[in-house]
Amino acid sequence: MAARKKTPSKKAASKKAPKKAAKANGRTSSEIVARNKKLDALTVSLIRDAAGDVHKDIEKRAKPDLAFPVRSLKNVSYSTQKGYFEIGRQKKVRTLTVNTVKGFAQTLRMMGLSKELVETNDFATKRDAYYQSKNWEDARFEEQSESDTVMDDIEALFSVRGLSREQLRFVPDEHGGAVAGRLVVLDPDRETGQVERIDCTRFGSGAYSIPSTVEHLSFETDAKFVLAIETGGVFQRLQSHKFWQTADCILVSMAGVPTRATRRFIRKLSDECKIPVYAFVDCDPYGISNIYRTLKVGSGNAAHLSQFFCVPQARFLGVTPQDIVDYRLPTHPLQDVDIKRAKDALKNDPFFKTHKPWQKAIEQLLKMGVRAEQQALAKWGLNYVIDEYLPRKLEQTARFLP
Amino acid sequence: MAARKKTPSKKAASKKAPKKAAKANGRTSSEIVARNKKLDALTVSLIRDAAGDVHKDIEKRAKPDLAFPVRSLKNVSYSTQKGYFEIGRQKKVRTLTVNTVKGFAQTLRMMGLSKELVETNDFATKRDAYYQSKNWEDARFEEQSESDTVMDDIEALFSVRGLSREQLRFVPDEHGGAVAGRLVVLDPDRETGQVERIDCTRFGSGAYSIPSTVEHLSFETDAKFVLAIETGGVFQRLQSHKFWQTADCILVSMAGVPTRATRRFIRKLSDECKIPVYAFVDCDPYGISNIYRTLKVGSGNAAHLSQFFCVPQARFLGVTPQDIVDYRLPTHPLQDVDIKRAKDALKNDPFFKTHKPWQKAIEQLLKMGVRAEQQALAKWGLNYVIDEYLPRKLEQTARFLP
Repeated sequence: MAARKKTPSKKAASKKAPKKAAKANGRTSSEIVARNKKLDALTVSLIRDAAGDVHKDIEKRAKPDLAFPVRSLKNVSYSTQKGYFEIGRQKKVRTLTVNTVKGFAQTLRMMGLSKELVETNDFATKRDAYYQSKNWEDARFEEQSESDTVMDDIEALFSVRGLSREQLRFVPDEHGGAVAGRLVVLDPDRETGQVERIDCTRFGSGAYSIPSTVEHLSFETDAKFVLAIETGGVFQRLQSHKFWQTADCILVSMAGVPTRATRRFIRKLSDECKIPVYAFVDCDPYGISNIYRTLKVGSGNAAHLSQFFCVPQARFLGVTPQDIVDYRLPTHPLQDVDIKRAKDALKNDPFFKTHKPWQKAIEQLLKMGVRAEQQALAKWGLNYVIDEYLPRKLEQTARFLP
Repeated sequence: MAARKKTPSKKAASKKAPKKAAKANGRTSSEIVARNKKLDALTVSLIRDAAGDVHKDIEKRAKPDLAFPVRSLKNVSYSTQKGYFEIGRQKKVRTLTVNTVKGFAQTLRMMGLSKELVETNDFATKRDAYYQSKNWEDARFEEQSESDTVMDDIEALFSVRGLSREQLRFVPDEHGGAVAGRLVVLDPDRETGQVERIDCTRFGSGAYSIPSTVEHLSFETDAKFVLAIETGGVFQRLQSHKFWQTADCILVSMAGVPTRATRRFIRKLSDECKIPVYAFVDCDPYGISNIYRTLKVGSGNAAHLSQFFCVPQARFLGVTPQDIVDYRLPTHPLQDVDIKRAKDALKNDPFFKTHKPWQKAIEQLLKMGVRAEQQALAKWGLNYVIDEYLPRKLEQTARFLP
């Protein structure tokens, strides 16, 4: 699987790309394929089990039912130990009756589609699944909102068994972020199983675009950390100036609130390669409580996803409210919506309520009444962020906000 | 520069990646660097000329002025011959007076920043430029909207001399689209000039992410066409199933209305490698008149950009209104906003007014009163788009809408 960090001498490491491990096309390659196959076999057996229970009930002439976790904020808890928003134990039970027969049938057909997708090594977006149903006769969906709800239910159902929607082969329609730096992505071909080695140091001013689903990927890296960046502008600057080479890291552009694929990519990368993740976003309530909080612990109304998609190991590099003072950054006044968002975070958000340093930081921001963008560092020179800000920050990672 | 299409036998070509031309790291490499340097030298000399005129006026104790093209719909024309929206000859003249001194100084400083960026082989986003100005003392901008306007003026000023904003090294903050398929991108390193060869057949299920600016890129390809795709979902399907291999093409994901970088990338690729561009978007007024029209001829309120950013060689593969009938696609009713957009296109848009086949197609859509998404083809199977729809369409490219 992913090569462990080898703590090479900094100089040497920063000069060349991750080593081309000869094993990547040999043993490791078949290991990757075997791991993916194992996961697929597990997925199919879990679908079979769920459908099997329904089948047994029917044979016993009992009314079959399916129990889905309740997807609402009331059924969510935040555990500092696990580090993410977690779905609770409340269930809603859907029993097969005359009134529920259509929804019940649709749920089973959707599960059947998932099984088929795993078996053919294919995938479907929400839209694909909706249009596929047009051939399900009486079980077809009239509106995509209906099929989305059924898919969300199935996702929640299997999430308590440890399966993500992507493992069920339902993939988002949206693209992932862009990646550059000291990382080799290993991607087995869906037909031949042959592993493609994608070296993210070799894209010039461009980058690697994360696919819609990343479950099948593995990684090799000797990077010291992942830098998750809010804006395309800052990402492009760091990439064009090869910051990943001097700082020995991997750059990921989130382009605002990161997509599912981007979050899952960062999480898998950090888990499997045991490297820390640092977030670099605007200093405003949106950057802190939407972008960073979603990256780190997930979002409240999709807590059944957090176990797969959050990055609990993420820490906040900046821009912090104290940076506005220390670096004398140009600012904009906080808008009403900013103030509301900040107050809401302090009052209602289990994550910020748990972490004292965050409360202090948000209170400081409210008191100053201003916000600052990460590009505000350009006041001191376009490359100040590369030459001064980031190196200084990275000397004191222990002081990053949690 | 870019390798010409070599019309290899279809079978052979579809099996292997574009040939690694040995010259890529030799002569061609230095040619690429030389071409970029020449363009940079031209840029600097044009900035010098503009500033020199001002300087001469001052030395003669005359009032210096700068003449900017008027940026409004009234000053736009559509030429079928050139194939894009073109800015007219109306100019607004800004003369240096007591009242205009600040704006005048800001314009000159912004031109100076551009010159510095070219000379240091660097770049700045709109935001970067705004924050840079914070050190320009009395010439600093108070709001980013002010600096954006000055940048737009400068862009328009130099566009009539054939320079794009990207050549002035002012780059968009947004990412480009994703690319996969039979293409090698040649990207010279900004410091060493060493050319990175990025093989877009080697990204597994991922893709090449287009950088913010593409002026410095060159290409090698033997692909037969570029397929520009609206949705990430369809792009991912075609990429994961390696449609580019069987169809001998290059896939570009636009993710809605394409960004500047994506449009410029497609344009450069098509121009330099002499390959056609086919658009594959939803069959609705947004897909037709916003996404496709913007890709092909540009947008009305930014006509000074069209010469660089539009892709006049683009043609419309589908989904056409007739496809809804021919392929019995599931549809949604047209909303009021769709109807308004379609009627507006028929009545006011110089592009659609020029092309009869488009008028007929839009009228047909209005008459049917429905729209269809490209993913609606999934009704006939998830891979129907790959196995049936696209191959059939590609047999009759002459019938594509203009």
